[in-house]
Amino acid sequence: MALASGMRLSARALLRPWSPLRGKALGCTEPAAGGGNGARLFGSQRVLVEPDPAAGVAVMKFKNPPVNSLSLELLTEFVISLEKLENDKTFRGVILSSDCPGVFSAGLDLTEMCGRNPAHYAEYWKAVQELWLRLYLSNLVLIAAISGACPAGGCLISLTCDYRVLADNPKCLIGLNETLLGIIAPFWFRDTLVNTIGHRAAERALQLGLLFPPAEALQVGMVDQVVPEDQVQSTALSVMAQWMAIPGEEHREGQQLWVLVGEQSPLPPQPDAPGETRKF
Amino acid sequence: MALASGMRLSARALLRPWSPLRGKALGCTEPAAGGGNGARLFGSQRVLVEPDPAAGVAVMKFKNPPVNSLSLELLTEFVISLEKLENDKTFRGVILSSDCPGVFSAGLDLTEMCGRNPAHYAEYWKAVQELWLRLYLSNLVLIAAISGACPAGGCLISLTCDYRVLADNPKCLIGLNETLLGIIAPFWFRDTLVNTIGHRAAERALQLGLLFPPAEALQVGMVDQVVPEDQVQSTALSVMAQWMAIPGEEHREGQQLWVLVGEQSPLPPQPDAPGETRKF
Amino acid sequence: MALASGMRLSARALLRPWSPLRGKALGCTEPAAGGGNGARLFGSQRVLVEPDPAAGVAVMKFKNPPVNSLSLELLTEFVISLEKLENDKTFRGVILSSDCPGVFSAGLDLTEMCGRNPAHYAEYWKAVQELWLRLYLSNLVLIAAISGACPAGGCLISLTCDYRVLADNPKCLIGLNETLLGIIAPFWFRDTLVNTIGHRAAERALQLGLLFPPAEALQVGMVDQVVPEDQVQSTALSVMAQWMAIPGEEHREGQQLWVLVGEQSPLPPQPDAPGETRKF
Repeated sequence: MALASGMRLSARALLRPWSPLRGKALGCTEPAAGGGNGARLFGSQRVLVEPDPAAGVAVMKFKNPPVNSLSLELLTEFVISLEKLENDKTFRGVILSSDCPGVFSAGLDLTEMCGRNPAHYAEYWKAVQELWLRLYLSNLVLIAAISGACPAGGCLISLTCDYRVLADNPKCLIGLNETLLGIIAPFWFRDTLVNTIGHRAAERALQLGLLFPPAEALQVGMVDQVVPEDQVQSTALSVMAQWMAIPGEEHREGQQLWVLVGEQSPLPPQPDAPGETRKF
Repeated sequence: MALASGMRLSARALLRPWSPLRGKALGCTEPAAGGGNGARLFGSQRVLVEPDPAAGVAVMKFKNPPVNSLSLELLTEFVISLEKLENDKTFRGVILSSDCPGVFSAGLDLTEMCGRNPAHYAEYWKAVQELWLRLYLSNLVLIAAISGACPAGGCLISLTCDYRVLADNPKCLIGLNETLLGIIAPFWFRDTLVNTIGHRAAERALQLGLLFPPAEALQVGMVDQVVPEDQVQSTALSVMAQWMAIPGEEHREGQQLWVLVGEQSPLPPQPDAPGETRKF
Repeated sequence: MALASGMRLSARALLRPWSPLRGKALGCTEPAAGGGNGARLFGSQRVLVEPDPAAGVAVMKFKNPPVNSLSLELLTEFVISLEKLENDKTFRGVILSSDCPGVFSAGLDLTEMCGRNPAHYAEYWKAVQELWLRLYLSNLVLIAAISGACPAGGCLISLTCDYRVLADNPKCLIGLNETLLGIIAPFWFRDTLVNTIGHRAAERALQLGLLFPPAEALQVGMVDQVVPEDQVQSTALSVMAQWMAIPGEEHREGQQLWVLVGEQSPLPPQPDAPGETRKF
């Protein structure tokens, strides 16, 4: 979730039918075994999901060793798991983290981007866009618990979240460093960064491919909090509790409604029947 | 007044004929008695206007006890009083403050927003939009002298001003806290906040409905200055004097002109005949 | 060069055929004498160009005593010199500075803007726009080495650069102070400033015509570094070396490509053949 309409380009303009990828299970997506009480671990090989239905919160952990490269399979499993959580009204918040020590995610999988055919490039890149769209437009509260390196696509994922907690470890560098790798960050990577740290800081960071150590990341606004490594998860949970205390649906869909009301209708919000009108 | 064209959505797109409200006197609007020399106090029951023609400055004080709720009557009287000042070339600046101790304004009047019929909602909400448009597009220099709590719609009013002075009192909380109340801030509340404190800070403040105490409000950029409570008014006046020293009309209408010139005409500004071309 | 697509208005919308000015040599433009090895000083009467082909960097110095007013001749010579450097693949970076002690540039030449005929105004103002477009959309890395006063148009030029180094001298004031002079800064001056220091700071700076001394300029983000006066040039060179270490063309044209790819084509970047697709 994010203040999406502040983006310079409409996220919705990017959304295209994605039937080839959406319809079938790529990789080895494995639905949760058992009962449907929501309390069992479900997910897939590459994305662990640890639900806490009582709190309304789930923790999703990337598990694609050694560095959580965003392979097509990981992206697919991630989007499916996220969609399940979105559809399950039990959950209002998700914490994103990593099951691989020392890294949050190394970003896009370069092996998906060269030596393949155009159809594969198209499929892969659509999956990257889909991930970003799902996260940035999510109704869930998203918090990134970052205990490892967080470059490029890993950083993008964290930027789509509502709050970022970073481990105070000099190895926990974060940034969109595509330029240094000879890769060009798409405009929506850039816009997401601009929304987070402002135009000028984003300009410099993108052009030089800067990776920020924790103190600098905090100062420039790339993350919201830096804590000792062993407190990243607990901090994320306690920040999430703060969000969960916000009443109703307002913190999720509030910003979108008034675009409609303001443009099309003179009607004010009707607090007594929020469920009907607040859907995006 | 504000750098209006930097807004993400055109304020003008919102401006609609507003004849039902504009034409008639709602509430008990009471024009200034007497002479027309501009020196007499005029205004209405709910908005006191204290003009200082020599300085070219007027002080407007909300007076709708106990908490300066923005009722339809207050909004109407406020807009009418502001229009009078706009039309009176004697005045170039207005200081907005409160006649009710402990509060600048508590914001929108919730009793106008539930238990009424759609026509009333439409009328009320148009009045809120009108207030915002009048303030944010005003040719007057506007300074908010805030000596009390300043939540929600009260905060919005202050954000439309050119400068905000806040009393250094822990009770003087300021912010768009609609989310906490189960109300959704319209997109133009959001955009006004984004323009003031930036995208990321606005995102977080809106989603959590944050109310900032003075020191934090200053740090995040929600206000421009925090001073002891008994110096709020005098500080506002001395800041206003700084603005009044700016020559001509430039500080008011300057930003708009070049939108026209740049897009439609190759002509440069003609400093020797500013009055003709600078009208918005 | 700058993150141009982040601008609120398309720079390209401003670009018009400019044949009357481009085709002929205004002023006394004097091409470099001699050999074509790129190592000789070339330029013109009003813009000195000191190339360092080995480093891929050239230094351009305004030389229009006493205050480097941006006369039509200076603008023309500057654009021509810049175009030469753009076309010469030897050069990837340019440092902008001044040959006149105590001033970077005093900005637009007021004598070009009054007492002339409309055709002259049009020609002059197009030249100003052309300069801004050339700089802000340049493929070259641009660094401003500012050892003197930098008001108005001088400030605009520095804002189009990728990095600004300012001398730590109280006389080195920098800002868009047009308002104080009774002149209105065009919207693209404003947008360039907003992109650099953010909306709220730009709003206040423009409305009051603020000129920032070095420490304040650094704090507000108007410049990136403040150094002792005798280290301005060397600092600019060492920052430039940092930029020159970025591989390939990514730091120049990277941002633009994905606008095309994302909107028109599902193809990902092809790192092994960047030259073909990365042209703007």
